[in-house]
Amino acid sequence: MIDRYTIGEIGEIFSDESRMTAWLEVELLTVEALATLGKIPSEDAILVRRLAPKIDRAFVDEVGAREAITNHDLAAFVDVVQSHIGVSAASWVHYGLTSSDVVDTALSVILVKAGKAISGQVRGAILALYNKAVEYQDTVMAGRTHGMHAEPTTFGNKLALFCLALNRDYERLERAISGISVGKLSGAVGTYSNIDPEVEKIVCGALGLTPTPATQVIARDRHAEYVYALTSMAATIETIATEIRHLARTELGEAQEYFQPGQKGSSAMPHKRNPILSERLVGLSRVMRGYLISSLEDIALWHERDISHSSVERVIMPDASILAYYMANKLTSLISGLVVDEVAMKRNLDNSFGLVFSQSLLLAIVDSGRTRDDAYRIVQGAAARAIKERRHLRLVLEDEASVQLDESVLDAAFDAHRIIANASLTLKEASKIPLVRNEFQ
Amino acid sequence: MIDRYTIGEIGEIFSDESRMTAWLEVELLTVEALATLGKIPSEDAILVRRLAPKIDRAFVDEVGAREAITNHDLAAFVDVVQSHIGVSAASWVHYGLTSSDVVDTALSVILVKAGKAISGQVRGAILALYNKAVEYQDTVMAGRTHGMHAEPTTFGNKLALFCLALNRDYERLERAISGISVGKLSGAVGTYSNIDPEVEKIVCGALGLTPTPATQVIARDRHAEYVYALTSMAATIETIATEIRHLARTELGEAQEYFQPGQKGSSAMPHKRNPILSERLVGLSRVMRGYLISSLEDIALWHERDISHSSVERVIMPDASILAYYMANKLTSLISGLVVDEVAMKRNLDNSFGLVFSQSLLLAIVDSGRTRDDAYRIVQGAAARAIKERRHLRLVLEDEASVQLDESVLDAAFDAHRIIANASLTLKEASKIPLVRNEFQ
Amino acid sequence: MIDRYTIGEIGEIFSDESRMTAWLEVELLTVEALATLGKIPSEDAILVRRLAPKIDRAFVDEVGAREAITNHDLAAFVDVVQSHIGVSAASWVHYGLTSSDVVDTALSVILVKAGKAISGQVRGAILALYNKAVEYQDTVMAGRTHGMHAEPTTFGNKLALFCLALNRDYERLERAISGISVGKLSGAVGTYSNIDPEVEKIVCGALGLTPTPATQVIARDRHAEYVYALTSMAATIETIATEIRHLARTELGEAQEYFQPGQKGSSAMPHKRNPILSERLVGLSRVMRGYLISSLEDIALWHERDISHSSVERVIMPDASILAYYMANKLTSLISGLVVDEVAMKRNLDNSFGLVFSQSLLLAIVDSGRTRDDAYRIVQGAAARAIKERRHLRLVLEDEASVQLDESVLDAAFDAHRIIANASLTLKEASKIPLVRNEFQ
Amino acid sequence: MIDRYTIGEIGEIFSDESRMTAWLEVELLTVEALATLGKIPSEDAILVRRLAPKIDRAFVDEVGAREAITNHDLAAFVDVVQSHIGVSAASWVHYGLTSSDVVDTALSVILVKAGKAISGQVRGAILALYNKAVEYQDTVMAGRTHGMHAEPTTFGNKLALFCLALNRDYERLERAISGISVGKLSGAVGTYSNIDPEVEKIVCGALGLTPTPATQVIARDRHAEYVYALTSMAATIETIATEIRHLARTELGEAQEYFQPGQKGSSAMPHKRNPILSERLVGLSRVMRGYLISSLEDIALWHERDISHSSVERVIMPDASILAYYMANKLTSLISGLVVDEVAMKRNLDNSFGLVFSQSLLLAIVDSGRTRDDAYRIVQGAAARAIKERRHLRLVLEDEASVQLDESVLDAAFDAHRIIANASLTLKEASKIPLVRNEFQ
Repeated sequence: MIDRYTIGEIGEIFSDESRMTAWLEVELLTVEALATLGKIPSEDAILVRRLAPKIDRAFVDEVGAREAITNHDLAAFVDVVQSHIGVSAASWVHYGLTSSDVVDTALSVILVKAGKAISGQVRGAILALYNKAVEYQDTVMAGRTHGMHAEPTTFGNKLALFCLALNRDYERLERAISGISVGKLSGAVGTYSNIDPEVEKIVCGALGLTPTPATQVIARDRHAEYVYALTSMAATIETIATEIRHLARTELGEAQEYFQPGQKGSSAMPHKRNPILSERLVGLSRVMRGYLISSLEDIALWHERDISHSSVERVIMPDASILAYYMANKLTSLISGLVVDEVAMKRNLDNSFGLVFSQSLLLAIVDSGRTRDDAYRIVQGAAARAIKERRHLRLVLEDEASVQLDESVLDAAFDAHRIIANASLTLKEASKIPLVRNEFQ
Repeated sequence: MIDRYTIGEIGEIFSDESRMTAWLEVELLTVEALATLGKIPSEDAILVRRLAPKIDRAFVDEVGAREAITNHDLAAFVDVVQSHIGVSAASWVHYGLTSSDVVDTALSVILVKAGKAISGQVRGAILALYNKAVEYQDTVMAGRTHGMHAEPTTFGNKLALFCLALNRDYERLERAISGISVGKLSGAVGTYSNIDPEVEKIVCGALGLTPTPATQVIARDRHAEYVYALTSMAATIETIATEIRHLARTELGEAQEYFQPGQKGSSAMPHKRNPILSERLVGLSRVMRGYLISSLEDIALWHERDISHSSVERVIMPDASILAYYMANKLTSLISGLVVDEVAMKRNLDNSFGLVFSQSLLLAIVDSGRTRDDAYRIVQGAAARAIKERRHLRLVLEDEASVQLDESVLDAAFDAHRIIANASLTLKEASKIPLVRNEFQ
Repeated sequence: MIDRYTIGEIGEIFSDESRMTAWLEVELLTVEALATLGKIPSEDAILVRRLAPKIDRAFVDEVGAREAITNHDLAAFVDVVQSHIGVSAASWVHYGLTSSDVVDTALSVILVKAGKAISGQVRGAILALYNKAVEYQDTVMAGRTHGMHAEPTTFGNKLALFCLALNRDYERLERAISGISVGKLSGAVGTYSNIDPEVEKIVCGALGLTPTPATQVIARDRHAEYVYALTSMAATIETIATEIRHLARTELGEAQEYFQPGQKGSSAMPHKRNPILSERLVGLSRVMRGYLISSLEDIALWHERDISHSSVERVIMPDASILAYYMANKLTSLISGLVVDEVAMKRNLDNSFGLVFSQSLLLAIVDSGRTRDDAYRIVQGAAARAIKERRHLRLVLEDEASVQLDESVLDAAFDAHRIIANASLTLKEASKIPLVRNEFQ
Repeated sequence: MIDRYTIGEIGEIFSDESRMTAWLEVELLTVEALATLGKIPSEDAILVRRLAPKIDRAFVDEVGAREAITNHDLAAFVDVVQSHIGVSAASWVHYGLTSSDVVDTALSVILVKAGKAISGQVRGAILALYNKAVEYQDTVMAGRTHGMHAEPTTFGNKLALFCLALNRDYERLERAISGISVGKLSGAVGTYSNIDPEVEKIVCGALGLTPTPATQVIARDRHAEYVYALTSMAATIETIATEIRHLARTELGEAQEYFQPGQKGSSAMPHKRNPILSERLVGLSRVMRGYLISSLEDIALWHERDISHSSVERVIMPDASILAYYMANKLTSLISGLVVDEVAMKRNLDNSFGLVFSQSLLLAIVDSGRTRDDAYRIVQGAAARAIKERRHLRLVLEDEASVQLDESVLDAAFDAHRIIANASLTLKEASKIPLVRNEFQ
């Protein structure tokens, strides 16, 4: 677990105590299900539940000490639980189960919980993006492709697109949570050799999971889909963070991360206010991609399972979840605290000599009867001159003898507001996101 | 494109001709939509469609020659199309569009087509797995965990699990196809600056796509999901292929790939019949994971787009699709042609001295009143002796003074058929897969 | 193989003809070595060499036809070669060898050849970078960290650093070539079961390879190191290309890719001149990272080999080599043709209100007796005002009553040339690169 | 950091205390170098060193508290160090430096230390492999390709190959350590703007590092090479672990991990002794591959640096180092404790009906005058019958009228000892590894 990036409830979800609590619940529910089905005396089940140990640090340490002997964590856990219970009914604990029945079903419980915690953060980020999109829906700025001015857009349009993208990841995450909401109590190789399939139904039902056919373990494509959903979301956050890094550049100065009083941007250069949070988020997205590779390599286990996935999951499942939670959480503050400089946006747009209207001009010339290629070459030449002479494209074009366009046509071609008239459609689309609709009704 | 692994219709889908045909269709539909909306004369649209060039190798080469000048493939394409049409109406081609309107919408058309082609192959593989699962539903064999005999299972159970796993990937692929079934004709930065949003609706509708808010390009998380779905499927195929590689081992000999007359398994050792197809499939899954990484790195483009994703997609979109198609297709033949040796399965199961019944025995001893840990240590000791003395566990246990179990209890504990009585539940679950249900009703 | 990015000699190196030519040479050298060692008659070896087929497309097709029967490419090749030779001496072909003796040794030959071809391109790129570094060694510009102006640097310094970085990759590539310059002719499981180890020495010697202990195949960590070297180089090229993409941005305009006459930067916007080559190179670096993952997964083969690496290598070895060659080649033209705007560099530097001198100012204040933290806060405050008021930092500071610095101290603090006085050390370091020293002496 | 897999000294190397100790040393050495060069009074340097804080948990917490204000860890550190020193000489601390001068140079110190610690473990593993290779140099067993019996080999040969492979990784690691043994104290953008290049030489010299031209930071290809070296080593360990997993399979039983008294192989099945350590090592190699991807993505930073690499490195540098250390350490115990069953090796070899001699037989038939293809088909047919009839290949062949071979020829063809006569060459090669030579002289 990555201390520096562990915030909120997500760290606790992956604690030893949390894991063993989930293990114990699977074991106890199984004993109770055996009783319900008449396989063991009801009193035994009641006794087992009543005498079951409290899971705390001391218990975890006891299991650790036992594991030094068994070299098997779940077997050690069962031994310690049974010794805590102390009475003969304890022998029903783990009866007919294999370790993975407990471990894998509990892992599903934990991943579902983690997924939901992350999902909560993502919802916050979606709403933050939507709010800002509404706030800046009329803020005209340069749209840029290849890092170059293309045509005008609005900052609200950008944010609304991010909002829609993050919502797609939210849907992926919800699907992945649903995919991992499965449990299995079908024994050593998934054949229910020594356990009634009804037990699985009862226990999974109590845990909010669906029983799934399995080998000794639940198939790992489900776990990989969880990691994929987080990685895709991380890439969307990376996209947003990359945008902010660009807008914060000295020469653009269109947006800036919130800079707290007392903060030092650089140990050497007092003037620095760097987009460090955005950069951090970009880095973490790289880490997530690495985890996804490891997770996908876990799918092709041998026969009814080998345990090679386990060391991987001990590392990446907490870490990927913790980072995803952190990223969604920090994105929310990044967006909420974003300092937007609308004056700079306008200044930059105005500074590119009207080049952003080159397509409008091209079409106006086509409309006047020239072929597209002709029109293209005329505007291309004029644009090159505009840049070279640092003069406005319209002025350069007006000097161009070969083209004669009416003032009104030129006015329209060079009108930023005409160009962005439809930019609000994206925001309209974002307003239909169920989360957004619920929040703003 | 990977000649050696390009089979069926998938190669053609990614040919230059196919791509330019899709480009042309987007351009023509756009001209027609402009006419429908009254923006340009209907006759012009009719003329443009009528005079539009036939896309063949000669046309592709002409675009290539033009691209040597424009250094821009779509701009070259538009130039050549317009010169083929030859009349002034040609100027409506690409009117108000930016390259990506055409390229990205056409890419969606192509990926949907590729996705469906792959999906067809996957369906075949699912049915092949189901068929074999039915055929071997009663074939008892050793279930193995960690490569070691665990408890008996059936070969049909294994295959039914594979069938279910592949069906999950099929569903992922269908979702990914749906995710990429989007188009955009919203111009240079997605603001519909010089095009009516209605055009987008009409054109996308005609192509079977949904319009999506976009920057200059469609967001790349959709493309990455397509690659993810293929990669997940590849990992499932890798799992199946790994199983066959294991079963084919000399010491197991439980299954073998079909070996054609005249085939040489090794240039040096005439006796060799190697699971080379399975090994090949495993390798290709590794290649797919690599493509996924590249695809995920494509998501965080700059501002309203940069074109860094393009070189990636030119390589990986055809290659990932071609490999996925190949893998699904070959999996089908692999499974259909699989040579299963039921005698060897039985022999191997019988050869492990009854160890596969150790849990049943453990539970029988618990039932007789011992604690779980006691019972565990008794059976563990007996098992170690069985291996060491190469003697059946039951015989070893019968020598064990400390345990007295009735014959009938022992009979039950050592009864493979009791153990696999519920193994058919997986097959039952597989029979509920819609594809399977449709096929077998 | 990726047609669009296959340039120069690299494509031919991976052609079927090239591969089979290398196979044949290994086979013929082996026959000759057997003769040299007196194992077979010398005349037979002479005959075999004389009657050996010419490797052309027809031969390749013949092997293809034969492979349809053998389902084994090397076995088919041997059959066809022997049938071409026609006489009984043909039976010495492949005598005592296993396929991998031929295939793997030949693969080394091919990778060495490919590596050297790529290496030649990298050398060109290193020299191009060095040349430009010399040209712009005195061109002052803004050094930027986090995308923000930091302190002045020179464009020559940047380029010299790239030159050094690429040279490190060049050394990695040379090491990787040396690592893969190994062959093996030790038979089915590497025990020289039916072949004299002397044969291996003679054949490898003739091919410029060192014999290496092996299983059936040469260990794949060597091949992965080759791919790693290419991937690392690709990441350096990505770094350089990213720099150019940044410098080309509208607001910076400090450098631009060469734009050929007739080129179209955008199909819609005639003004566009986009850094498309740099973006393409960035994309291809992503593809390379994917290949590396696949290559690393190839290392852990089963026992004395399985063939899962083969399908991977058929795809990635040509493709990674082709892309690396393309990247190094294109980097050379990118750098050679780079259009640098020194006026823009100066303008941008001057436009940030002297903020780039904030550290010099901080140290001057420390020198005047203030604590570092005090000095920091003073300059930080002044810098914030400079930005807000769009006024030069020096002017803002001169208004600051709390600080009194001599004119001469301020002159020194705000002197860009003082700051970059040592920037040429990097170029000096680059001049020591052996390649560079050889070229410029 | 991954508690479960943190063993030995490696965890401490990455502790906060260790990092800040390295930071402090860089700062103090710099102050001393300034004094040496006459830039500041010698007494000040002596005072600063004397009054410098002790780095303990309390100090770390103090920096943490300060960082809550500065939002910059190194700036907070400098503030706290200066306040601890308390006298005006404290202002020389960090004089002329930028954070990365300290952070990056210290990171090199830490990675070198970590690299050497790992390297020590790898040396242990190489020797363990060599020892076992000597022990089993005459143990004949089945060599296997594609999981199928190929030809006989020796267990010592296998181990010697592993020894050589791991030694290649050892050399890669040593090179990577050397590559990262660099420091930089060249200021904000690497131009030595406010610091004498001599300071860098003195400080780096004292730390055992070489000064390197840099931007604000040391180029990340060096860090990636470190991660690559660890990843390549992990893949070799994965190869070895995979071999053991295979040999441990029930049907092979040729080798087994050491099983400690009291250990439980399965919570359900008392007979299980699973190769869980080998499986764990295989899993961890997957994790390493993921880290490598993240590390390679860190290379292409923006301009003179952005800080996106930092969050990545905070996670992966400790974790990759910790896992690599763990893997090398556990490999040593795995190999040292390996339980080898030579009887099983012989039994398995004998059980495949002499098929492992098929090439020898093929060559004997070729020697008798048949063409290779004829001989191949004869042996292929005989082998198929041997398998089908479960009868020895020699017996089957003796029934084959079309082939007449002398007894002595057959004896030689079916002689395992003849076949493995040269297998010891690998061990001889391994004995030349410098490490091995030093140990055994």
